[in-house]
Amino acid sequence: MNNFDFRNPTRILFGKGRIADLKDQVPKGAKVLVIYGGGSAERTGVLSQVREALSCHTLIEFGGIEPNPRFETALNAVELVREESITFLLAVGGGSVIDATKFIAAAATDKGDAWDILTSRGSVVKGALPFGTVLTLPATGSEMNPASVITHAEKGAKLPFMSSHCYPQFSVLDPEITFSLPPRQIANGVADAFVHIIEQYLTYPVAARVQDGFAETLLRTLIELGPKALETPGDYDIRANLMWTATLALNGLIGAGVPQDWASHMIGHEITALNDTDHARTLAVVLPSLMHDQRGPKREKLLQYAANVWDLRDGSDDARIDAAIDATRRFFETMGMKTRLGDYDISAPEIERIVNALKDHNMTAIGEHGVITPEDARRILEAAL
Amino acid sequence: MNNFDFRNPTRILFGKGRIADLKDQVPKGAKVLVIYGGGSAERTGVLSQVREALSCHTLIEFGGIEPNPRFETALNAVELVREESITFLLAVGGGSVIDATKFIAAAATDKGDAWDILTSRGSVVKGALPFGTVLTLPATGSEMNPASVITHAEKGAKLPFMSSHCYPQFSVLDPEITFSLPPRQIANGVADAFVHIIEQYLTYPVAARVQDGFAETLLRTLIELGPKALETPGDYDIRANLMWTATLALNGLIGAGVPQDWASHMIGHEITALNDTDHARTLAVVLPSLMHDQRGPKREKLLQYAANVWDLRDGSDDARIDAAIDATRRFFETMGMKTRLGDYDISAPEIERIVNALKDHNMTAIGEHGVITPEDARRILEAAL
Repeated sequence: MNNFDFRNPTRILFGKGRIADLKDQVPKGAKVLVIYGGGSAERTGVLSQVREALSCHTLIEFGGIEPNPRFETALNAVELVREESITFLLAVGGGSVIDATKFIAAAATDKGDAWDILTSRGSVVKGALPFGTVLTLPATGSEMNPASVITHAEKGAKLPFMSSHCYPQFSVLDPEITFSLPPRQIANGVADAFVHIIEQYLTYPVAARVQDGFAETLLRTLIELGPKALETPGDYDIRANLMWTATLALNGLIGAGVPQDWASHMIGHEITALNDTDHARTLAVVLPSLMHDQRGPKREKLLQYAANVWDLRDGSDDARIDAAIDATRRFFETMGMKTRLGDYDISAPEIERIVNALKDHNMTAIGEHGVITPEDARRILEAAL
Repeated sequence: MNNFDFRNPTRILFGKGRIADLKDQVPKGAKVLVIYGGGSAERTGVLSQVREALSCHTLIEFGGIEPNPRFETALNAVELVREESITFLLAVGGGSVIDATKFIAAAATDKGDAWDILTSRGSVVKGALPFGTVLTLPATGSEMNPASVITHAEKGAKLPFMSSHCYPQFSVLDPEITFSLPPRQIANGVADAFVHIIEQYLTYPVAARVQDGFAETLLRTLIELGPKALETPGDYDIRANLMWTATLALNGLIGAGVPQDWASHMIGHEITALNDTDHARTLAVVLPSLMHDQRGPKREKLLQYAANVWDLRDGSDDARIDAAIDATRRFFETMGMKTRLGDYDISAPEIERIVNALKDHNMTAIGEHGVITPEDARRILEAAL
């Protein structure tokens, strides 16, 4: 096991009816900016639950955060925070709204150029406004981690940052508010959480049994319950398990003390920056191809994955690895996600642009060994056509 | 899944050589009371590593915390804290030293009678001195939770308390400093962690797949690595996995959203209060007998435990349950722990005293359903003779 630091101070308020508990979590006397995305927060009644819970607080609202949240939109919110002397932010939404809120929280207290937050990957962040979240879409894990990804449309860039100042103070996770999500968003959430786990698990062994066992538990939960969530959208226990799994998939726990990959994410981000393909769908395309391409360096963990996650124990090593990769692809497709670049209107010329974007963004040595180059990414993408 | 709150702000510094990082964790300018137990912290060199790491801090030392730490001893430390205007506590030891430190931290800032902290189970605690820990014995999980158990010798009482003010600010977990532990302490630690997990797992199902899967991972890790830790005391990865398992066994994670039992602990505490039997050994006696006695209410989870932890999948339900209970008892015995009351000089008259002590301490309705009475405990203890 590798040395590690682990700390995660976010308070989770999990279960039915927990939005009402916001009143005890947001500091008394706070002037709160409620940040949300499109119309669904209003339509589903989540925003009205939030307003009712915080009826004794001063609320200002800022809607319109995009999927793949935009730098420019977040800066508009920062301006509002300053004009209105906001003291607390409340994100009501999925990963995009929460990611944007982290950026707004950091930029609002920063005197420099907000773009530096992204180009420094967060190292310039010296503080942030306190904020909490009400999660409406289990997927990214942003509700219990200090990381964020922001898109700059004009620059064609999708860049991550993280800062210890950017943990939510609290996150409300009410599985019932996921009942009304469209199947496409449930599928995206399950696939996103799945690949988050894989990025921290499918590398090389370091005798980290606890982390491996936890990761395998989370993967099996998604595999078993993901399709059932689509079939029976009103099943509370299925939604509760998926919601808690997605949070634990990326809260630092399973990644502590083990190597991490993240190459699928880095390549996938460039696809989204290119044509706005849903983040999770880019992962469903890249991951199976990357697993196949990296079957050498990942050999031991691929065999462990085949056995412990898919119960594949017969046949040669290579046959079991092939079967595990096939099962992964089929899992995404069972969730209604296409797994080929062509399904997303990407052909050879776009691959060239993705490879160049990786170079432009210094993604020249990625993966758990830091040796996957843009040319390796080209090969992985070509195999995914 | 049940509704839950989860928050755990303790920072873990895990791995080789991490004691040196104390210098960045203890606030600059702090006046530190280093709290430890017997001579082993000195003998093993842990204390000198601590002194070296904190050579720029003002240190005062307080040794002599007992196994099953005593109320009276802790009060002596509280007096020293006040006399010397101590601003930070550093526990260097196992669960007993850390538990005592939590009590000292709470009592030092409390103006009332320190005994009330225990009789109120911590509800009177309104603050605590900040403290960190250097863990020398993986067992109780106290290094990453807000709970403590203190013994009052004269009153024959061993009482738990907890408070949100009593999370360690940080805990240093260096598996190498466990290499020199005597086999008896390793065995105690493994058994203690094992029963902590069981108390949160072996109750009744609430469709909490993640919590169950995590608990099963931790149990299998202890079963596989516990005996190996005794055979190969210098194996880093074995000690690292056991150390992280013991912490995760009782940091709130696997118990969030599920029913909890704790009857074995409550009964076991009275055995230790009676004749100072090692805490873990009381659990190794009580648990198998309680599992057998409560096989009705625990039926579904016993079958799940048999299958997922012990891979017992053949035979009738009752046969698999019996086999799982036998396997549990054999596991303790493989670790060198006797599992019968007679092995600890306890016979019928002492059972009477234990039953009366449970009544005296209001332990009249324990277990996950709150229905195990002192008379039920008598039956469980008689079956353990």
